[in-house]
Amino acid sequence: MENLKVPLTHAFADAERAAVYQAIFSRRDVRGQFLPEPVPDAVLGRILMAAHHAPSVGFMQPWNFQLIRSEAVKRRVHGLFEQANAEAAQMFPDARREIYSRLKLQGIVDAPINLCVSCDRTRSGPVVLGRTHMPTMDLFSSVCAVQNLWLAARAEGVGVGWVSIFHEQALQAALGIPAHIVPVAYLCIGYVSHFKDKPELEQAGWLPRLPIADLIHYEQWGAT
Amino acid sequence: MENLKVPLTHAFADAERAAVYQAIFSRRDVRGQFLPEPVPDAVLGRILMAAHHAPSVGFMQPWNFQLIRSEAVKRRVHGLFEQANAEAAQMFPDARREIYSRLKLQGIVDAPINLCVSCDRTRSGPVVLGRTHMPTMDLFSSVCAVQNLWLAARAEGVGVGWVSIFHEQALQAALGIPAHIVPVAYLCIGYVSHFKDKPELEQAGWLPRLPIADLIHYEQWGAT
Ligand SMILES: Cc1cc2c(cc1C)N(C[C@H](O)[C@H](O)[C@H](O)COP(=O)(O)O)c1[nH]c(=O)[nH]c(=O)c1N2
Ligand SMILES: Cc1cc2c(cc1C)N(C[C@H](O)[C@H](O)[C@H](O)COP(=O)(O)O)c1[nH]c(=O)[nH]c(=O)c1N2
Repeated sequence: MENLKVPLTHAFADAERAAVYQAIFSRRDVRGQFLPEPVPDAVLGRILMAAHHAPSVGFMQPWNFQLIRSEAVKRRVHGLFEQANAEAAQMFPDARREIYSRLKLQGIVDAPINLCVSCDRTRSGPVVLGRTHMPTMDLFSSVCAVQNLWLAARAEGVGVGWVSIFHEQALQAALGIPAHIVPVAYLCIGYVSHFKDKPELEQAGWLPRLPIADLIHYEQWGAT
Repeated sequence: MENLKVPLTHAFADAERAAVYQAIFSRRDVRGQFLPEPVPDAVLGRILMAAHHAPSVGFMQPWNFQLIRSEAVKRRVHGLFEQANAEAAQMFPDARREIYSRLKLQGIVDAPINLCVSCDRTRSGPVVLGRTHMPTMDLFSSVCAVQNLWLAARAEGVGVGWVSIFHEQALQAALGIPAHIVPVAYLCIGYVSHFKDKPELEQAGWLPRLPIADLIHYEQWGAT
């Protein structure tokens, strides 16, 4: 391992590295464990700053953060979820539909904070470095911000749940989001009674965690 | 702060929390600082496992990880980059084009490992919980995996650079990726001589870091 000394100078010490993995492996999608206690502004400020330091194509930082604490707005958004969720249930085959309908898939009204992370596709002008050939890269940048926020929140003891069961246009209208801005993630945020050990959908038998070895390919696909 | 004691039981201790923020704030997009030293399998295995523990819509885990170490494949991909990058340069106005052409925007051949993270949109069947109304959620899940990997790599002292200046079809063909699978991120990975303090595009004067206050909105957009 002699020859690894130089590269390893930039690795974190063991305890710090373990903390990063702890955030990654103990992060959960939270739906039903929100506590009403307010999240202090300092904590919210840190997790938003973590989001703002995500990578972004051409450094365009296309994200916006729309904070919702108003009960009225939450209830309106919850109504949109209910409508879309009823439609969604109808799309599953009978056996799955029953399980689907029993799952709790959002914590919109329970969570003290709702946050819509969006993407301003016009930010920094029409030609964006790195987006010239792959147009979705701006949306993907906003997703990187979401994941930074989710991990920072875990370290703060704050739970986050992503809700995507909406008609996009209806959500956009309910939140007053301008047409050139795309809602990327609707998040429910707050302290929690506990973090579950495993994903709720894994616990509920919806789907198992896949063996990672099945997901790894080498060189040209299928060439092994 | 008395009433914060209960919620805070799930927060990390100060040093661990600081380590998570350290990974988030010191993570960089690496292009020119790759070292040839191999990344041990144990380290690569850990950062891939971090990616595999990302959130995913309906727990579908749509990601694949295609590892490229072959010089021949890297050179082919680098050729695709060169072609797309020459086209990209022509899209910028004169003043920007000169700066653009001087920027190093990939480390494909320098990095010991290239990794294509993709998204299998057919995984777990046609109807996916949470994707019923917002079809991009599977792609976004693969992006969450990329960001987990990027942060884990930082903690390991390993640099990551995202390259998106490709024609998607050409990249897909060069890597032999089946048609129903979408390449989401092409990453260059390896130990580094150093991590820069700031984004290279910020240092180069391409764009400034935006003031976060300008990106925050409340309740209904513009309602404040
Ligand atoms: C893009 C996207 C969209 C959604 C989600 C995630 C992602 C990445 N998830 C959460 C998802 O079900 C969860 O991440 C997985 O089940 C894995 O669980 P953990 O996140 O590891 O707890 C989610 N959960 C939910 O209850 N309702 C929803 O609408 C969605 N939508
Ligand atoms: C979706 C996406 C796509 C790309 C990037 C990022 C993301 C998120 N970035 C990296 C980008 O330029 C970088 O993240 C920002 O400049 C901010 O710098 P740091 O990541 O903080 O160092 C990037 N960099 C590069 O040199 N060539 C490229 O093609 C791309 N493409």
